[in-house]
Amino acid sequence: MAYVRLSPDDRRAQLLALAVRTFTERPYDDFSMDDLAAEAGVSKGLLYHYFPSKRALYLEVLHGAASELLGLMRPQPGLPLPDQLRAALLAYLAYVRERAPAYRAILRGGVGTDPEVAAVAELVRRTIRERILEGLQIPLPSPRLRLTVSGWVGLVEAASLDWLDHDDLDSERLADLLVDALTALLGALRQASSRGSNP
Amino acid sequence: MAYVRLSPDDRRAQLLALAVRTFTERPYDDFSMDDLAAEAGVSKGLLYHYFPSKRALYLEVLHGAASELLGLMRPQPGLPLPDQLRAALLAYLAYVRERAPAYRAILRGGVGTDPEVAAVAELVRRTIRERILEGLQIPLPSPRLRLTVSGWVGLVEAASLDWLDHDDLDSERLADLLVDALTALLGALRQASSRGSNP
Repeated sequence: MAYVRLSPDDRRAQLLALAVRTFTERPYDDFSMDDLAAEAGVSKGLLYHYFPSKRALYLEVLHGAASELLGLMRPQPGLPLPDQLRAALLAYLAYVRERAPAYRAILRGGVGTDPEVAAVAELVRRTIRERILEGLQIPLPSPRLRLTVSGWVGLVEAASLDWLDHDDLDSERLADLLVDALTALLGALRQASSRGSNP
Repeated sequence: MAYVRLSPDDRRAQLLALAVRTFTERPYDDFSMDDLAAEAGVSKGLLYHYFPSKRALYLEVLHGAASELLGLMRPQPGLPLPDQLRAALLAYLAYVRERAPAYRAILRGGVGTDPEVAAVAELVRRTIRERILEGLQIPLPSPRLRLTVSGWVGLVEAASLDWLDHDDLDSERLADLLVDALTALLGALRQASSRGSNP
């Protein structure tokens, strides 16, 4: 690509967009800042001017992806709760399907997995948990309810990874299964409370 | 510690036992092969004779821990399925409680998380899934059942991490909650099939 003069903001955005594509398509170790600079048609120095290291660039890409995903999963207060949940899950599944190698690498270890990467994944999980508890109007859950909602988010991740590997159910059916799972788990919790366990 | 002459097998076992303790108690980056050699009272050369790198030693420790955990969780065919599951979960929770920092690091990223580490965690998950399907006598599950069991294993991990962080429910109650969760998930699956979804 020939060198084109851009404003600093546009240049930064261009480099970031290229990095998003590269990190989505290729394993972290399979390219260098040199490769990125060459693909963008800029000097390595200019790339480092905007992003101090490959890891810093990766973390910025990851933070952007987390915001984008959480935006796509935003609650739609007009809808009944199960429909909101189903819509959010369909958005989640479409997003991870598009970015399967990156999703696997973040959740199941891989070169990029370090405490700051883990923190981004944890932010996504925490936001989903909080939205569910808000949807249920139980902002201060009992330990059992908190553990159940945390567990369900883990269930969604594990089922999504299994689904990416096997690809033998369509995303609508998987979203139904995940909504049914939360409903069943919350039902089991109510049953356990009424059996006399502390909630 | 003074240098003591041991047979090669005993020396290797001694070094491995020390490594198990060290990796359990301290973050991976907080000690070196030099430190281990000094603690064992052997030369660095001797330590490297048995274990070619810190990472190789870590992987051996991890494989040993996975075998130990799966041994502790072994099915007890004399018992009813929910009791077997409960006993296995209590063993799991006690094990991860004892090794909380290592468990967190393996599941949630951290320095040690690389493809070979992820493979050990995946082996544990796969064995647990297979044992559950064997217990249910459904060795060849439908996609939905497979996704549900995979999801439940993810639920157990996420709930265990939450439990280690909050420590506000005793392990017996958490084991009950996890058994009830699987029962509820399998019940939801049966209900969905009888509603006419393909199983």
